[in-house]
Amino acid sequence: MSETHAPTARTRVVREAHRGVYERTAAYEILDEGFICHVGFVVEGQPFVIPTAYGRSGDNLYIHGSAASRMLRNLDKGVAVCITVTLLDGLVLARSIFNHSMNYRSVVVLGTAVAVLDAKEKLEALRLLSQHILPGRWAESRQPNEKELKQTLVMRLPIEEFSAKVRQGPPIDDEEDYSFPTWAGVIPLAMVPGAPINDPRLDPKTPVPAYAQAYSRKKLG
Amino acid sequence: MSETHAPTARTRVVREAHRGVYERTAAYEILDEGFICHVGFVVEGQPFVIPTAYGRSGDNLYIHGSAASRMLRNLDKGVAVCITVTLLDGLVLARSIFNHSMNYRSVVVLGTAVAVLDAKEKLEALRLLSQHILPGRWAESRQPNEKELKQTLVMRLPIEEFSAKVRQGPPIDDEEDYSFPTWAGVIPLAMVPGAPINDPRLDPKTPVPAYAQAYSRKKLG
Repeated sequence: MSETHAPTARTRVVREAHRGVYERTAAYEILDEGFICHVGFVVEGQPFVIPTAYGRSGDNLYIHGSAASRMLRNLDKGVAVCITVTLLDGLVLARSIFNHSMNYRSVVVLGTAVAVLDAKEKLEALRLLSQHILPGRWAESRQPNEKELKQTLVMRLPIEEFSAKVRQGPPIDDEEDYSFPTWAGVIPLAMVPGAPINDPRLDPKTPVPAYAQAYSRKKLG
Repeated sequence: MSETHAPTARTRVVREAHRGVYERTAAYEILDEGFICHVGFVVEGQPFVIPTAYGRSGDNLYIHGSAASRMLRNLDKGVAVCITVTLLDGLVLARSIFNHSMNYRSVVVLGTAVAVLDAKEKLEALRLLSQHILPGRWAESRQPNEKELKQTLVMRLPIEEFSAKVRQGPPIDDEEDYSFPTWAGVIPLAMVPGAPINDPRLDPKTPVPAYAQAYSRKKLG
Protein backbone atom coordinates (compact mmCIF):
# COMPACT_ATOMS: atom_id res chain seq x y z
CA MET A 1 0.00 0.00 0.00
CA SER A 2 2.49 2.62 1.10
CA GLU A 3 5.87 3.31 -0.34
CA THR A 4 8.67 2.40 2.02
CA HIS A 5 11.11 5.22 2.52
CA ALA A 6 14.67 4.47 3.48
CA PRO A 7 15.67 6.95 6.19
CA THR A 8 18.97 8.75 5.77
CA ALA A 9 21.44 9.07 8.62
CA ARG A 10 20.05 12.55 9.29
CA THR A 11 16.36 11.64 9.49
CA ARG A 12 16.61 8.26 11.14
CA VAL A 13 14.81 8.50 14.46
CA VAL A 14 17.63 8.00 16.90
CA ARG A 15 15.77 7.42 20.14
CA GLU A 16 12.64 5.32 20.54
CA ALA A 17 12.98 3.98 17.06
CA HIS A 18 9.68 2.12 17.44
CA ARG A 19 7.98 5.50 17.12
CA GLY A 20 9.54 6.12 13.72
CA VAL A 21 7.19 5.92 10.77
CA TYR A 22 9.03 5.97 7.51
CA GLU A 23 6.21 5.31 5.14
CA ARG A 24 5.31 8.16 2.91
CA THR A 25 1.57 7.60 3.26
CA ALA A 26 1.65 7.93 7.03
CA ALA A 27 3.75 11.09 6.86
CA TYR A 28 1.43 12.61 4.27
CA GLU A 29 -1.61 11.97 6.44
CA ILE A 30 0.03 14.04 9.17
CA LEU A 31 1.07 16.76 6.73
CA ASP A 32 -2.45 16.89 5.32
CA GLU A 33 -4.12 17.18 8.72
CA GLY A 34 -1.89 20.00 9.95
CA PHE A 35 -1.64 23.41 8.36
CA ILE A 36 0.95 25.24 10.46
CA CYS A 37 4.59 24.23 10.22
CA HIS A 38 7.71 25.50 11.91
CA VAL A 39 10.44 26.32 9.40
CA GLY A 40 14.03 26.23 10.56
CA PHE A 41 16.83 27.95 8.69
CA VAL A 42 20.28 29.24 9.56
CA VAL A 43 21.67 32.75 9.27
CA GLU A 44 25.35 33.09 10.13
CA GLY A 45 25.32 30.04 12.36
CA GLN A 46 22.19 31.11 14.25
CA PRO A 47 19.11 28.89 13.78
CA PHE A 48 15.73 30.60 13.36
CA VAL A 49 12.39 28.84 13.75
CA ILE A 50 9.34 30.58 12.31
CA PRO A 51 5.71 29.39 12.21
CA THR A 52 3.96 29.58 8.85
CA ALA A 53 1.23 27.94 6.78
CA TYR A 54 1.99 25.31 4.18
CA GLY A 55 0.43 23.20 1.48
CA ARG A 56 1.37 19.92 -0.13
CA SER A 57 1.19 18.90 -3.75
CA GLY A 58 2.36 15.37 -4.40
CA ASP A 59 5.90 15.08 -3.12
CA ASN A 60 6.42 18.81 -2.59
CA LEU A 61 5.71 21.14 0.30
CA TYR A 62 4.95 24.78 -0.42
CA ILE A 63 5.29 27.72 1.94
CA HIS A 64 4.73 31.37 1.13
CA GLY A 65 5.27 34.78 2.57
CA SER A 66 6.16 38.33 1.84
CA ALA A 67 9.01 38.60 -0.61
CA ALA A 68 10.66 40.88 1.93
CA SER A 69 10.40 38.69 5.00
CA ARG A 70 13.62 37.59 6.62
CA MET A 71 12.66 33.95 6.42
CA LEU A 72 11.87 33.79 2.74
CA ARG A 73 14.60 36.22 1.82
CA ASN A 74 17.01 33.65 3.10
CA LEU A 75 15.24 30.60 1.74
CA ASP A 76 15.36 32.29 -1.64
CA LYS A 77 19.07 31.64 -1.81
CA GLY A 78 18.34 27.94 -1.69
CA VAL A 79 19.64 27.35 1.81
CA ALA A 80 19.05 24.25 3.89
CA VAL A 81 15.74 24.17 5.78
CA CYS A 82 13.87 21.94 8.14
CA ILE A 83 10.07 21.96 8.06
CA THR A 84 8.41 20.37 11.07
CA VAL A 85 4.69 19.74 11.50
CA THR A 86 3.42 18.73 14.94
CA LEU A 87 -0.09 17.57 15.82
CA LEU A 88 -0.65 17.38 19.55
CA ASP A 89 -3.13 14.70 20.58
CA GLY A 90 -2.96 14.58 24.35
CA LEU A 91 -1.19 14.68 27.69
CA VAL A 92 -0.06 11.24 28.84
CA LEU A 93 -0.18 10.99 32.63
CA ALA A 94 1.87 8.08 33.88
CA ARG A 95 2.28 7.02 37.51
CA SER A 96 5.93 8.08 37.50
CA ILE A 97 7.03 11.57 36.54
CA PHE A 98 9.65 9.98 34.30
CA ASN A 99 7.11 8.19 32.11
CA HIS A 100 4.89 11.20 31.55
CA SER A 101 4.64 11.92 27.87
CA MET A 102 2.50 13.41 25.13
CA ASN A 103 0.52 11.83 22.38
CA TYR A 104 1.45 13.48 19.12
CA ARG A 105 2.18 12.96 15.46
CA SER A 106 5.01 14.88 13.85
CA VAL A 107 6.86 15.01 10.57
CA VAL A 108 10.30 16.46 9.96
CA VAL A 109 11.35 17.24 6.39
CA LEU A 110 14.94 18.23 5.62
CA GLY A 111 16.16 19.69 2.38
CA THR A 112 16.75 22.76 0.29
CA ALA A 113 13.83 25.05 -0.43
CA VAL A 114 13.88 26.99 -3.68
CA ALA A 115 11.77 29.88 -4.94
CA VAL A 116 8.95 29.03 -7.34
CA LEU A 117 9.48 31.29 -10.34
CA ASP A 118 7.00 29.78 -12.80
CA ALA A 119 3.84 31.93 -12.65
CA LYS A 120 1.47 29.00 -13.16
CA GLU A 121 3.09 26.82 -10.48
CA LYS A 122 3.16 29.81 -8.12
CA LEU A 123 -0.55 30.53 -8.47
CA GLU A 124 -1.37 26.82 -8.18
CA ALA A 125 0.76 26.57 -5.02
CA LEU A 126 -1.13 29.50 -3.48
CA ARG A 127 -4.43 27.89 -4.45
CA LEU A 128 -3.57 24.56 -2.84
CA LEU A 129 -2.20 26.30 0.24
CA SER A 130 -5.56 28.05 0.63
CA GLN A 131 -7.44 24.87 -0.21
CA HIS A 132 -5.39 22.98 2.37
CA ILE A 133 -6.33 25.41 5.15
CA LEU A 134 -9.99 25.94 4.25
CA PRO A 135 -11.43 24.04 1.30
CA GLY A 136 -13.88 26.17 -0.66
CA ARG A 137 -12.44 29.54 0.32
CA TRP A 138 -10.24 30.17 -2.70
CA ALA A 139 -13.09 30.25 -5.22
CA GLU A 140 -15.10 32.72 -3.13
CA SER A 141 -12.31 35.25 -2.58
CA ARG A 142 -11.00 38.08 -4.68
CA GLN A 143 -8.18 36.47 -6.67
CA PRO A 144 -4.56 37.66 -6.40
CA ASN A 145 -3.57 40.40 -8.86
CA GLU A 146 -0.20 40.90 -10.53
CA LYS A 147 1.07 43.29 -7.88
CA GLU A 148 0.15 40.95 -5.04
CA LEU A 149 1.74 37.97 -6.75
CA LYS A 150 4.91 39.99 -7.16
CA GLN A 151 4.94 40.74 -3.42
CA THR A 152 4.49 37.07 -2.59
CA LEU A 153 7.33 34.62 -2.56
CA VAL A 154 6.46 30.92 -2.82
CA MET A 155 9.03 28.30 -1.89
CA ARG A 156 9.06 24.63 -2.79
CA LEU A 157 10.66 21.93 -0.65
CA PRO A 158 10.77 18.43 -2.15
CA ILE A 159 9.73 15.78 0.38
CA GLU A 160 12.73 13.53 -0.06
CA GLU A 161 14.47 13.32 3.28
CA PHE A 162 11.87 13.00 6.00
CA SER A 163 10.77 11.13 9.08
CA ALA A 164 7.56 10.85 11.05
CA LYS A 165 7.20 10.19 14.74
CA VAL A 166 4.00 9.05 16.40
CA ARG A 167 3.08 8.38 20.03
CA GLN A 168 -0.46 7.28 20.80
CA GLY A 169 -2.25 5.38 23.52
CA PRO A 170 -2.11 5.08 27.31
CA PRO A 171 0.92 5.69 29.52
CA ILE A 172 3.56 2.99 29.73
CA ASP A 173 4.75 2.72 33.31
CA ASP A 174 7.48 0.61 34.84
CA GLU A 175 5.87 -2.63 35.96
CA GLU A 176 6.49 -1.93 39.65
CA ASP A 177 4.77 1.47 39.37
CA TYR A 178 1.35 0.15 38.31
CA SER A 179 0.42 -0.21 41.98
CA PHE A 180 1.37 3.41 42.74
CA PRO A 181 -1.80 5.06 44.07
CA THR A 182 -2.46 7.83 41.53
CA TRP A 183 -4.75 8.34 38.60
CA ALA A 184 -3.19 7.54 35.23
CA GLY A 185 -4.44 8.01 31.71
CA VAL A 186 -4.66 10.47 28.86
CA ILE A 187 -6.16 13.94 28.59
CA PRO A 188 -6.95 14.27 24.86
CA LEU A 189 -6.10 17.54 23.14
CA ALA A 190 -7.22 18.83 19.78
CA MET A 191 -7.28 22.06 17.83
CA VAL A 192 -10.96 22.93 17.80
CA PRO A 193 -12.63 25.69 15.78
CA GLY A 194 -15.23 27.98 17.29
CA ALA A 195 -18.24 29.59 15.61
CA PRO A 196 -17.27 31.99 12.80
CA ILE A 197 -17.17 35.67 13.83
CA ASN A 198 -18.35 38.23 11.29
CA ASP A 199 -15.98 41.01 10.27
CA PRO A 200 -17.53 44.13 11.90
CA ARG A 201 -17.48 45.76 8.46
CA LEU A 202 -19.42 42.89 6.87
CA ASP A 203 -23.00 43.45 5.75
CA PRO A 204 -24.75 41.51 8.54
CA LYS A 205 -27.14 40.01 6.00
CA THR A 206 -24.22 38.07 4.44
CA PRO A 207 -24.68 34.40 5.31
CA VAL A 208 -21.79 32.41 6.77
CA PRO A 209 -20.80 30.03 3.96
CA ALA A 210 -21.20 26.28 4.41
CA TYR A 211 -17.43 25.64 4.25
CA ALA A 212 -16.91 27.99 7.22
CA GLN A 213 -19.88 26.67 9.18
CA ALA A 214 -18.84 23.07 8.66
CA TYR A 215 -15.17 23.73 9.32
CA SER A 216 -13.61 21.30 11.71
CA ARG A 217 -10.09 19.99 11.99
CA LYS A 218 -10.36 16.94 14.12
CA LYS A 219 -12.76 15.19 16.42
CA LEU A 220 -11.72 14.73 20.02
CA GLY A 221 -11.25 11.09 20.96
CA MET B 1 4.30 48.13 34.12
CA SER B 2 6.34 45.96 31.82
CA GLU B 3 10.04 46.12 31.20
CA THR B 4 10.88 47.41 27.76
CA HIS B 5 13.20 45.14 25.86
CA ALA B 6 15.45 46.56 23.18
CA PRO B 7 15.36 44.16 20.22
CA THR B 8 18.68 43.16 18.71
CA ALA B 9 19.26 43.20 14.98
CA ARG B 10 18.51 39.46 14.92
CA THR B 11 15.18 39.53 16.77
CA ARG B 12 13.77 42.79 15.45
CA VAL B 13 10.58 41.94 13.62
CA VAL B 14 11.46 42.91 10.08
CA ARG B 15 8.09 42.86 8.36
CA GLU B 16 4.88 44.15 9.84
CA ALA B 17 6.73 45.76 12.69
CA HIS B 18 3.42 46.85 14.24
CA ARG B 19 2.94 43.19 15.20
CA GLY B 20 6.17 43.13 17.20
CA VAL B 21 5.78 43.07 20.96
CA TYR B 22 9.03 43.63 22.73
CA GLU B 23 7.82 43.81 26.28
CA ARG B 24 8.92 40.99 28.47
CA THR B 25 5.55 40.71 30.22
CA ALA B 26 3.69 40.17 26.97
CA ALA B 27 6.17 37.54 25.81
CA TYR B 28 5.97 35.73 29.14
CA GLU B 29 2.18 35.58 28.95
CA ILE B 30 2.52 33.74 25.65
CA LEU B 31 5.26 31.46 27.00
CA ASP B 32 3.15 30.68 30.06
CA GLU B 33 0.03 29.82 28.05
CA GLY B 34 1.79 27.45 25.64
CA PHE B 35 3.58 24.30 26.66
CA ILE B 36 4.98 22.93 23.38
CA CYS B 37 7.88 24.70 21.73
CA HIS B 38 9.83 24.04 18.56
CA VAL B 39 13.57 23.98 19.18
CA GLY B 40 15.87 24.77 16.29
CA PHE B 41 19.53 23.80 16.26
CA VAL B 42 22.17 23.23 13.62
CA VAL B 43 24.22 20.12 12.88
CA GLU B 44 26.86 20.51 10.18
CA GLY B 45 24.99 23.34 8.50
CA GLN B 46 21.65 21.52 8.51
CA PRO B 47 18.90 23.04 10.69
CA PHE B 48 16.71 20.69 12.73
CA VAL B 49 13.40 21.66 14.30
CA ILE B 50 12.04 19.40 17.03
CA PRO B 51 8.87 19.79 19.13
CA THR B 52 9.24 19.44 22.87
CA ALA B 53 7.74 20.60 26.17
CA TYR B 54 9.20 23.48 28.12
CA GLY B 55 8.88 25.37 31.37
CA ARG B 56 9.82 28.87 32.45
CA SER B 57 11.37 30.06 35.66
CA GLY B 58 11.94 33.78 35.81
CA ASP B 59 14.08 34.75 32.84
CA ASN B 60 15.04 31.19 31.90
CA LEU B 61 13.41 28.58 29.68
CA TYR B 62 13.95 24.91 30.47
CA ILE B 63 13.60 21.97 28.12
CA HIS B 64 14.35 18.36 28.89
CA GLY B 65 14.77 15.05 27.17
CA SER B 66 16.66 11.84 27.06
CA ALA B 67 20.37 12.35 27.59
CA ALA B 68 20.85 10.30 24.42
CA SER B 69 18.52 12.19 22.09
CA ARG B 70 20.04 13.86 19.06
CA MET B 71 18.61 17.21 20.01
CA LEU B 72 19.90 17.40 23.54
CA ARG B 73 23.16 15.68 22.69
CA ASN B 74 23.87 18.66 20.51
CA LEU B 75 22.47 21.30 22.83
CA ASP B 76 24.73 19.87 25.49
CA LYS B 77 27.73 21.34 23.71
CA GLY B 78 26.28 24.78 24.23
CA VAL B 79 25.36 25.43 20.60
CA ALA B 80 23.09 28.19 19.36
CA VAL B 81 19.38 27.43 19.54
CA CYS B 82 16.10 29.05 18.68
CA ILE B 83 13.04 28.23 20.77
CA THR B 84 9.74 29.23 19.22
CA VAL B 85 6.32 29.02 20.87
CA THR B 86 3.25 29.53 18.71
CA LEU B 87 -0.34 29.84 19.89
CA LEU B 88 -2.81 29.68 17.05
CA ASP B 89 -5.98 31.70 17.65
CA GLY B 90 -7.87 31.63 14.39
CA LEU B 91 -8.17 31.70 10.62
CA VAL B 92 -8.60 35.22 9.27
CA LEU B 93 -10.75 35.22 6.14
CA ALA B 94 -10.37 38.42 4.18
CA ARG B 95 -12.19 39.31 0.96
CA SER B 96 -8.96 39.06 -1.05
CA ILE B 97 -6.80 35.95 -1.03
CA PHE B 98 -3.80 38.20 -0.44
CA ASN B 99 -5.12 39.54 2.87
CA HIS B 100 -6.00 36.18 4.34
CA SER B 101 -4.06 35.63 7.54
CA MET B 102 -4.07 33.88 10.89
CA ASN B 103 -4.55 35.18 14.38
CA TYR B 104 -1.70 33.97 16.52
CA ARG B 105 0.72 34.86 19.29
CA SER B 106 4.29 33.68 19.02
CA VAL B 107 7.59 34.16 20.80
CA VAL B 108 11.05 33.53 19.39
CA VAL B 109 13.97 33.21 21.80
CA LEU B 110 17.53 33.06 20.47
CA GLY B 111 20.55 32.09 22.46
CA THR B 112 22.81 29.37 23.73
CA ALA B 113 21.29 26.55 25.75
CA VAL B 114 23.46 24.87 28.36
CA ALA B 115 23.02 21.68 30.36
CA VAL B 116 21.81 22.06 33.93
CA LEU B 117 24.33 20.16 36.04
CA ASP B 118 23.28 21.25 39.51
CA ALA B 119 21.07 18.49 40.95
CA LYS B 120 18.78 20.85 42.82
CA GLU B 121 18.21 23.15 39.82
CA LYS B 122 17.64 20.12 37.60
CA LEU B 123 14.95 18.65 39.83
CA GLU B 124 13.35 22.06 40.25
CA ALA B 125 13.35 22.56 36.47
CA LEU B 126 11.59 19.22 35.99
CA ARG B 127 9.07 20.15 38.66
CA LEU B 128 8.21 23.46 37.06
CA LEU B 129 8.07 21.87 33.62
CA SER B 130 5.48 19.43 34.96
CA GLN B 131 3.71 22.18 36.88
CA HIS B 132 3.62 24.29 33.72
CA ILE B 133 1.87 21.56 31.73
CA LEU B 134 -0.53 20.32 34.38
CA PRO B 135 -0.55 22.05 37.78
CA GLY B 136 -1.07 19.57 40.58
CA ARG B 137 0.32 16.54 38.79
CA TRP B 138 3.88 16.59 40.12
CA ALA B 139 2.89 16.06 43.77
CA GLU B 140 0.66 13.09 42.91
CA SER B 141 3.21 11.19 40.82
CA ARG B 142 5.98 8.83 41.73
CA GLN B 143 9.01 11.12 42.00
CA PRO B 144 12.09 10.70 39.78
CA ASN B 145 14.78 8.40 41.15
CA GLU B 146 18.55 8.73 40.73
CA LYS B 147 18.69 6.52 37.66
CA GLU B 148 15.93 8.44 35.91
CA LEU B 149 17.51 11.78 36.70
CA LYS B 150 20.77 10.52 35.22
CA GLN B 151 18.96 9.56 32.02
CA THR B 152 17.36 12.98 31.78
CA LEU B 153 19.14 15.99 30.39
CA VAL B 154 17.78 19.41 31.30
CA MET B 155 18.83 22.45 29.32
CA ARG B 156 18.54 26.09 30.30
CA LEU B 157 18.13 28.94 27.81
CA PRO B 158 18.28 32.47 29.25
CA ILE B 159 15.51 34.65 27.81
CA GLU B 160 17.73 37.52 26.73
CA GLU B 161 17.34 37.89 22.98
CA PHE B 162 13.68 37.47 22.10
CA SER B 163 10.74 38.87 20.20
CA ALA B 164 7.01 38.33 20.27
CA LYS B 165 4.61 38.66 17.38
CA VAL B 166 0.87 38.98 17.74
CA ARG B 167 -1.95 39.22 15.22
CA GLN B 168 -5.50 39.49 16.53
CA GLY B 169 -8.83 40.81 15.27
CA PRO B 170 -10.78 40.91 12.03
CA PRO B 171 -9.34 40.81 8.52
CA ILE B 172 -7.86 44.01 7.10
CA ASP B 173 -8.84 44.29 3.45
CA ASP B 174 -7.87 46.85 0.87
CA GLU B 175 -10.47 49.60 0.95
CA GLU B 176 -11.78 48.81 -2.53
CA ASP B 177 -12.32 45.15 -1.59
CA TYR B 178 -14.84 45.77 1.20
CA SER B 179 -17.64 45.70 -1.38
CA PHE B 180 -16.49 42.32 -2.75
CA PRO B 181 -19.44 39.94 -2.29
CA THR B 182 -18.04 37.28 0.02
CA TRP B 183 -18.24 36.47 3.70
CA ALA B 184 -15.35 37.78 5.77
CA GLY B 185 -14.40 37.27 9.37
CA VAL B 186 -12.55 35.00 11.74
CA ILE B 187 -12.88 31.31 12.55
CA PRO B 188 -11.48 31.04 16.10
CA LEU B 189 -9.16 28.14 16.88
CA ALA B 190 -8.02 26.85 20.24
CA MET B 191 -6.34 23.81 21.70
CA VAL B 192 -9.17 22.18 23.64
CA PRO B 193 -8.88 19.27 26.07
CA GLY B 194 -11.32 16.36 26.03
CA ALA B 195 -12.54 14.29 28.95
CA PRO B 196 -9.74 12.34 30.68
CA ILE B 197 -9.42 8.70 29.53
CA ASN B 198 -8.49 6.11 32.14
CA ASP B 199 -5.41 3.98 31.55
CA PRO B 200 -6.87 0.51 30.81
CA ARG B 201 -4.67 -0.85 33.60
CA LEU B 202 -6.02 1.64 36.14
CA ASP B 203 -8.22 0.40 38.95
CA PRO B 204 -11.56 1.73 37.63
CA LYS B 205 -12.50 2.86 41.14
CA THR B 206 -9.68 5.46 41.06
CA PRO B 207 -11.32 8.89 40.78
CA VAL B 208 -10.14 11.35 38.13
CA PRO B 209 -8.36 14.05 40.14
CA ALA B 210 -9.72 17.59 40.19
CA TYR B 211 -6.69 19.04 38.37
CA ALA B 212 -7.33 16.68 35.44
CA GLN B 213 -11.09 17.21 35.43
CA ALA B 214 -10.72 20.96 35.54
CA TYR B 215 -7.92 21.06 33.00
CA SER B 216 -8.46 23.60 30.30
CA ARG B 217 -6.00 25.57 28.25
CA LYS B 218 -8.02 28.37 26.78
CA LYS B 219 -11.58 29.42 26.26
CA LEU B 220 -12.73 29.84 22.68
CA GLY B 221 -13.71 33.42 21.86
